[in-house]
Amino acid sequence: MDRIDPWGSLEISDYEHLFEDFGLEKLNDEMLSLDHKYFRRGLAVAHRDFKKIMKAMNEDEPFYCMTGFATSGKFHIGHKAVVDLIKFLKEQGAKLFIGICDIDAYTSRPDNKVPSIEASKENAVENLAHILSLGLDKEDVYIQSQMPPRYYEFSYELSKKITRNQFSAIYGHVNLGKISATLLQIADILNPQLEEFGKPMPGVVPIALEQDPHIRITRDVARKLSYDMVLPSSLNIKHVGGLQKGEKMSASKPRTAIFLSDSDEEIDKKIDEAYTGGRDTAEEQREKGAVIEEDKIYQLLRFHMDDDERLREIRRKYSSGEMLSGEIKQICKEELKNFLKDHRKKFKKNKSKAEDMVYG
Amino acid sequence: MDRIDPWGSLEISDYEHLFEDFGLEKLNDEMLSLDHKYFRRGLAVAHRDFKKIMKAMNEDEPFYCMTGFATSGKFHIGHKAVVDLIKFLKEQGAKLFIGICDIDAYTSRPDNKVPSIEASKENAVENLAHILSLGLDKEDVYIQSQMPPRYYEFSYELSKKITRNQFSAIYGHVNLGKISATLLQIADILNPQLEEFGKPMPGVVPIALEQDPHIRITRDVARKLSYDMVLPSSLNIKHVGGLQKGEKMSASKPRTAIFLSDSDEEIDKKIDEAYTGGRDTAEEQREKGAVIEEDKIYQLLRFHMDDDERLREIRRKYSSGEMLSGEIKQICKEELKNFLKDHRKKFKKNKSKAEDMVYG
Repeated sequence: MDRIDPWGSLEISDYEHLFEDFGLEKLNDEMLSLDHKYFRRGLAVAHRDFKKIMKAMNEDEPFYCMTGFATSGKFHIGHKAVVDLIKFLKEQGAKLFIGICDIDAYTSRPDNKVPSIEASKENAVENLAHILSLGLDKEDVYIQSQMPPRYYEFSYELSKKITRNQFSAIYGHVNLGKISATLLQIADILNPQLEEFGKPMPGVVPIALEQDPHIRITRDVARKLSYDMVLPSSLNIKHVGGLQKGEKMSASKPRTAIFLSDSDEEIDKKIDEAYTGGRDTAEEQREKGAVIEEDKIYQLLRFHMDDDERLREIRRKYSSGEMLSGEIKQICKEELKNFLKDHRKKFKKNKSKAEDMVYG
Repeated sequence: MDRIDPWGSLEISDYEHLFEDFGLEKLNDEMLSLDHKYFRRGLAVAHRDFKKIMKAMNEDEPFYCMTGFATSGKFHIGHKAVVDLIKFLKEQGAKLFIGICDIDAYTSRPDNKVPSIEASKENAVENLAHILSLGLDKEDVYIQSQMPPRYYEFSYELSKKITRNQFSAIYGHVNLGKISATLLQIADILNPQLEEFGKPMPGVVPIALEQDPHIRITRDVARKLSYDMVLPSSLNIKHVGGLQKGEKMSASKPRTAIFLSDSDEEIDKKIDEAYTGGRDTAEEQREKGAVIEEDKIYQLLRFHMDDDERLREIRRKYSSGEMLSGEIKQICKEELKNFLKDHRKKFKKNKSKAEDMVYG
């Protein structure tokens, strides 16, 4: 059985084995009928114990949604995709505990990526300002390095409930920085169930598939704790693929990512250079249509564009050959630039609020 | 080269190899002339870089003294011995950062010793009330679980500066609870030099010899940090030996220890049952005198008794055969009971202050 490296940066193209090897579950019909584009479009691909959350939603029982943004670099459109889902879960009644994870971003990343805790905090300000501008409220978000002492105490407590073998089996290596990050992440996921921060209740962590190891170890630990805890659920969404072939969207590889801080010129250039599923010549494209599964632009629109009708139309035209790569790129540029025009104004307003939150 | 296990519970009877193997230094004449019973009586046996502290004392420069009390059990006379030294260093100008280490006591100890963080905090209240009653002020002491977020952030930052190999080389095993304890201990020793808590300055950690690994790893880490730090010094004092042969005074073995919470009856019983260097018969004792180096009662008095003259007299009489084991035991009982009579009153008064500090 392969391990999944939650800190790796490759795209997971073969989802199928994860269901067999790790016990992830596929979404059932009720889940797939949830009223959000990710469910309609097959972008939510797997879950662990999400039935609990469906039940809580259906019965109007309290539940929470927790996810953490590791502040290892700039905020990109893949992060926005997660915020979109979080907002939907909030509308469904979830109490939000969204972590700006500045400490674990530093301890889990190599020095050439996050050279210091200070650098991580600078990223935190930028990330947080984007998140607030996307519509989350101050109360929905917390800064890892600004938590009350009980949070850290709890994170350290957890170290008694994880053996080294368990850690290596899941992560494949024992590195003190990653051990630290793991303790903090488990504390992030479980602390909403402590009496100091919340109460025992179902919780869902929307995360990418390759972060499933964090959920597995968290559930293992939760079982061993003497606190009353509901085992947390997860909801796995696909990655917004990188703009280049075979690469995840990654802050450390600017050509793969659309940053929410990109200028219009940068957007144009990145989209122009993006890998598409279009054919070699316009003629061939007209005849065969685009290979839509490999088209980075279409995949990005699938996450970003809200209008189902319009997206379906693009898909039909592009895959039939009626639309060329240049045209879909043009649509994508306009979509992004329209979105950013408004977003930049909000970002400007939220910057100092974010600074106040990060520096306490 | 043997490792030293800082969490072990055996007495280190052979100090000599530590100087060769680990680079500990012997006290020089200037140090030995410091005006405290431990220096006069050869109970301070080694140091690391204590010259810096001598210089700071001589030149009236700022320096600090940090030590941590792991709240893994009841407070005993061996802990009091450390407080005696801390008080002396305070008189010499040291700013005190005395940690009540409730988190690391839990993570570093097995569950059968410290079953929960709550149990650790109960011990913390008791330990702290004794420490305050011994004459340290509220301002001299901090509770690990009540520190500001920056302290914990710093502790986690440190995980980037310790490799797994370095950890195993020093501690011989990689256990997540002990890794946590080590991060916290290093943060305890170094945080007084962060701008948030103090400033870069020499600092001394008075500790038992077998805790030298903590100092070595702390100095290694301090060298790698980007903060401006003076490498911390240590001052090693001998253990107050346990009351039974070959055993360290340990809270988990009541017969080895005099607890500051013991009743007069318990004191009498423990002293009666203590191992002595007296001879098998009174006659033989009169003839040969006691083997004072093995006598647990005399060794205890060496730490506890303040009157040099009286101690010297006891030594002379007991080792010459003029005094019998029963007599020195009687002296010891009276010393302890006199001390505790006064101490109990103070403890009663300090209990609620300690509770307020531990529970925040």
